[in-house]
Amino acid sequence: MLKVSQRGQVMPASPIRKLVPFAEAAKKKGTTVYHLNIGQPDIETPALMLEAVRESHLKVLEYSHSAGNESYRRKLTGYYKSVGIDVNYNQIIVTTGGSEAILFGFMACLDAGDEVIIPEPFYANYNGFAVAAGVKVVPVTSSIDTGFALPPISAFVEKITPRTRAIVICSPNNPTGYLYSEAEMQQLKEIILQYNLYLFSDEAYREFCYEGHQVSAMHLKGVENHVVLMDTISKRYSACGARLGALVTKNVAVLETVMKFAQARLSPPSFAQIAAEAALDLPADYFNHTREEYRERRNLLVRRLNAMEGVVCPTPGGAFYAMAQLPVDDADVFCQWLLEKFSYNNQTVMLAPASGFYGTPGLGKREVRLAYVLNINNINLAMDCLEQALKVYNQPK
Amino acid sequence: MLKVSQRGQVMPASPIRKLVPFAEAAKKKGTTVYHLNIGQPDIETPALMLEAVRESHLKVLEYSHSAGNESYRRKLTGYYKSVGIDVNYNQIIVTTGGSEAILFGFMACLDAGDEVIIPEPFYANYNGFAVAAGVKVVPVTSSIDTGFALPPISAFVEKITPRTRAIVICSPNNPTGYLYSEAEMQQLKEIILQYNLYLFSDEAYREFCYEGHQVSAMHLKGVENHVVLMDTISKRYSACGARLGALVTKNVAVLETVMKFAQARLSPPSFAQIAAEAALDLPADYFNHTREEYRERRNLLVRRLNAMEGVVCPTPGGAFYAMAQLPVDDADVFCQWLLEKFSYNNQTVMLAPASGFYGTPGLGKREVRLAYVLNINNINLAMDCLEQALKVYNQPK
Repeated sequence: MLKVSQRGQVMPASPIRKLVPFAEAAKKKGTTVYHLNIGQPDIETPALMLEAVRESHLKVLEYSHSAGNESYRRKLTGYYKSVGIDVNYNQIIVTTGGSEAILFGFMACLDAGDEVIIPEPFYANYNGFAVAAGVKVVPVTSSIDTGFALPPISAFVEKITPRTRAIVICSPNNPTGYLYSEAEMQQLKEIILQYNLYLFSDEAYREFCYEGHQVSAMHLKGVENHVVLMDTISKRYSACGARLGALVTKNVAVLETVMKFAQARLSPPSFAQIAAEAALDLPADYFNHTREEYRERRNLLVRRLNAMEGVVCPTPGGAFYAMAQLPVDDADVFCQWLLEKFSYNNQTVMLAPASGFYGTPGLGKREVRLAYVLNINNINLAMDCLEQALKVYNQPK
Repeated sequence: MLKVSQRGQVMPASPIRKLVPFAEAAKKKGTTVYHLNIGQPDIETPALMLEAVRESHLKVLEYSHSAGNESYRRKLTGYYKSVGIDVNYNQIIVTTGGSEAILFGFMACLDAGDEVIIPEPFYANYNGFAVAAGVKVVPVTSSIDTGFALPPISAFVEKITPRTRAIVICSPNNPTGYLYSEAEMQQLKEIILQYNLYLFSDEAYREFCYEGHQVSAMHLKGVENHVVLMDTISKRYSACGARLGALVTKNVAVLETVMKFAQARLSPPSFAQIAAEAALDLPADYFNHTREEYRERRNLLVRRLNAMEGVVCPTPGGAFYAMAQLPVDDADVFCQWLLEKFSYNNQTVMLAPASGFYGTPGLGKREVRLAYVLNINNINLAMDCLEQALKVYNQPK
């Protein structure tokens, strides 16, 4: 018999998508499902981006430059300047989504058997890219008790081995919403300098900070050669389907190496680059509106959750996710039950069990991630469902 | 000092793109450069595809299904049926270009250290995806003397080791234009059955056959579980910048494994899927026009090349490439000279040296690949340049 690869066997299925068949079955029965399980915002993509695509008068849909259109990269430097990141266009490689930026960073900087330390819970797909690259993910646990703050330096140091090559961070964080402080970013800088590591920084949610500002890894002084920024337009402009991101670094050897991987796949998508370049003409206050919308949703969600008996939800400082601890033994079982067995006024809610966001087996069993990507009205309805569900689930049988 | 990965160091730079800086310098001097070096057709993308994107009234550019929109996959089965390939929509995973289909196939079926046999010369980027997957490419040499026909079975058998897991083919071939016959495809079937191998079949150029028809690997009976089709719309509809392809197989384990890699990168680009779905409404005679255009270009190119002293160019049966042997010692040096030192009526031509398409060092030194992606007039002007250049280059010094 032909076999699939070992790496294919250990490749994890998406924890966010594994409940999809149960959601589909619920919908077929006529139940409304509120999707708080996935970071697909309902915010409209800026009309200006869609119009730019509509009005592009290209005759031949050609390959672009492997690093992305030069006009787009030049204009992107202005965007980065506006968030305090000083780069030139040659330090930007446009990628097919943030996903490809992560994959290229891993491929260019890490070899099979190398280790990356990642504070857990973390974006589950890091596991997938690590498997693709043959890299071992070593988790450092952050806890709901501290609101998922950066673990102390000592916790990182304990995990460092001769094969440790990088730390991966995401701030504001998916899935916790935690926003690293200036002090925490300085701690990370100390570690990467002392142990000569790369710092891969996933900043997909840069614009969505509700308490203070994001400190970018690119703001850190003296570690310019260590920092690889993985970026995306997916959340920034609610343009997840465009599949456009960027890898940004000042490390010339990394840039040259990533370019070889970029050339092998020829180019990032052309339509998406047209839309993304147009987005750079959005008015300066564009993010204020979306940020305020998300802030209102966050406040509502956190308030509703903490008002439920036995539920604990720290207030996230950024992104559009919250992690909550529920009064259940096994959130995987509960989330499936919500879709399979429960409905309230013919509605139910889909959540992401947190276990898939932890690298350490057994952690996060009672936690779920909620993406506040629905409008206020729907969040309220979803919270009504959850509140009722917890009562039903926990009533004495 | 921080180091890039070993795999990044061995990753080859694109042999097609490495002369780009010399072409850019020539253009800056005011020289017209005819690009026969890269498979970027000048054929217009069907207006119907671009209009579909223009007229899509989406408000939120959302992630699609990780396997691609179901409506697109369902419609694609009709296209495949029209070329004699009987699949259902669940056997199709839509990818970001044919590139991603190749990468996913390698990742899902092969482990680091495994070997794939590929008839050389071959599409150079297979090397890149092999490096990404840690896989060793083992070339089997085909020769310009036989017009790059499939090497005999014995040549394959000689290369098989306990680590051999797959054969990669591309018919019609890039870079040679060779179209495998029914008999040659049957030979391949025997080998993969006997040695229990995967057959990865890159069929990017299916529609462009000038002598008979393409035999798809999916047409072979009794090896359904061995065949993984890697497909793309890039060349078919002159839509290289869309970045849309597909991996197609009847092997359920491979499909399930590829899906895990597909989920990790979330989804293929949305705009491209809209364009590609619209393309399936093109009239049945659409390919006749483009095929005839390419046939005329091929005939002209091959005639002009063989009329030059010391040049040998077999007539390719498909795709839009020809390999020619030139009366020069080192085609890499000659191709660079064409851009750096030569011009004729203020024009020159850019070719792809063939050495980058061979896995065996030292082969193809006197060969070049020419992509007949320019119109008849420009091909004539490019051939005028090449004819003149060879005279100048070879005149006694």
